[in-house]
Amino acid sequence: MRLGTVRVGEDRLAAVEREGRWYALGVPAGTPLEAVLAAGAGEVARLAASATEQVEDAVPVAPLRPGKIVAIGLNYLDHIREAGMDKPERPLMFAKFPSSVIGPGDEIVIDDELTERVDWEVELAAVIGSPLRYASEREALAGVAGYTVANDVSARDLQFADGQWTRGKNLDTFCPLGPVVVTPDEIGDPQALALRTVVNGETVQNSTTAEMLFGVAELLSYCSRAFTLEPGDVVLTGTPWGCGEFMTPRRSLRPGDVVEVSVEGIGTLRNPVVGRR
Amino acid sequence: MRLGTVRVGEDRLAAVEREGRWYALGVPAGTPLEAVLAAGAGEVARLAASATEQVEDAVPVAPLRPGKIVAIGLNYLDHIREAGMDKPERPLMFAKFPSSVIGPGDEIVIDDELTERVDWEVELAAVIGSPLRYASEREALAGVAGYTVANDVSARDLQFADGQWTRGKNLDTFCPLGPVVVTPDEIGDPQALALRTVVNGETVQNSTTAEMLFGVAELLSYCSRAFTLEPGDVVLTGTPWGCGEFMTPRRSLRPGDVVEVSVEGIGTLRNPVVGRR
Repeated sequence: MRLGTVRVGEDRLAAVEREGRWYALGVPAGTPLEAVLAAGAGEVARLAASATEQVEDAVPVAPLRPGKIVAIGLNYLDHIREAGMDKPERPLMFAKFPSSVIGPGDEIVIDDELTERVDWEVELAAVIGSPLRYASEREALAGVAGYTVANDVSARDLQFADGQWTRGKNLDTFCPLGPVVVTPDEIGDPQALALRTVVNGETVQNSTTAEMLFGVAELLSYCSRAFTLEPGDVVLTGTPWGCGEFMTPRRSLRPGDVVEVSVEGIGTLRNPVVGRR
Repeated sequence: MRLGTVRVGEDRLAAVEREGRWYALGVPAGTPLEAVLAAGAGEVARLAASATEQVEDAVPVAPLRPGKIVAIGLNYLDHIREAGMDKPERPLMFAKFPSSVIGPGDEIVIDDELTERVDWEVELAAVIGSPLRYASEREALAGVAGYTVANDVSARDLQFADGQWTRGKNLDTFCPLGPVVVTPDEIGDPQALALRTVVNGETVQNSTTAEMLFGVAELLSYCSRAFTLEPGDVVLTGTPWGCGEFMTPRRSLRPGDVVEVSVEGIGTLRNPVVGRR
């Protein structure tokens, strides 16, 4: 299933997408998708199967509001080579705040009083469906409700000047998510997905999740040994080669740009870039 | 007002504390305190004034579940000297996850397979009541719904080995909060509060918020220039001198210890330390 949240007038509806059309799930308006996903794969499948009422004029928004967002740095072998960094011995964890989440079509806002080096990062994002604590890799994958696409937008100047990455990774609008959450049965092997970033029509990142140093199962199991991954949490699994920061000459996003991040089997998340008004 | 959340059987009630007794606020059982606080100071005062039904056998729990927790490092002049660090030019921001929050009396759990250097950090915590974005210092203080006490428990070995502090600061149970949220009118000047940590009856941190490098108003204003502080968010404002990590010889929390963190005008948050079972 391809699940998401759509705006219809003032309402937000949890919905399922089939062939480009949206069908409302049989839950009260305003029920967040994360609550639907937490009900378990069987219930999600039942709701999706009985969703036959097409939603007209549906505008997809961010599929969910995560409880927390755990992000992983330096997790692609090609990105590690590009950044000239040593291969981490264990996953390098940082945090993105739920307040940074936007949806498909929403604007990435650059405040030029804060940053002039804003970069893109396409990432496969795992959405947690059931609590994971001290989970084996097998249990970890079984706890995933679905996968979505994330753009881990990063203010490189703040990220590196602060040392701690929190501020540079958490400016408002810096976590586009979507366009849909795809259930694991439709994804197949999460370590065999093409992913790509296109800026103004030009492909800048073009890799595969096979390049991950630590795979999804290992990342989730690792996180769960430190803390509980809760239903509705989202784990960003790192970005491959092709960030603007490491190009010669360096490239950064500017107002007027359009950035599209895609993961095979999920879709494309397209966001225009604007300046702070 | 002194506001909190109490457990009565299976219910969680938002409540006001007066002279050690708890009175239920007139909101449906299960209404989280952060929702009450977001209704604004006037509504909170009205609810507290009309709360006359004493709750018998009330057990205070964590007063709220924050949407996000923004924490500030190296923000006390005495702590900066102790750690032998340079004074930051701007606030140093990191994140704690809501999943790390526990309440008064709850156990801090040490997993000795992960860490053997667990430290205490008493902090004044500001609870956000109204959204703050590009807020002046005056606007920032006006957006504070109240203050509580936090223990920013830290696994020093993970914190320093990882570089990014996220994992070492976010083990489950590593963010005791409480025992109450005190409204700003009762706190007075947030830069003139004594704060203290007592471990097994011995005072180890003993300072004042006057030692902050960046005060509460400046911190909140600074955060709000990067991202929106939302109702129910919590900002931890840093810890003073007296962490175990910087003592000679180094001291760490062990199973069997009891750690109490206090801030003047708010109260004491007492948590026993146990090993992972």
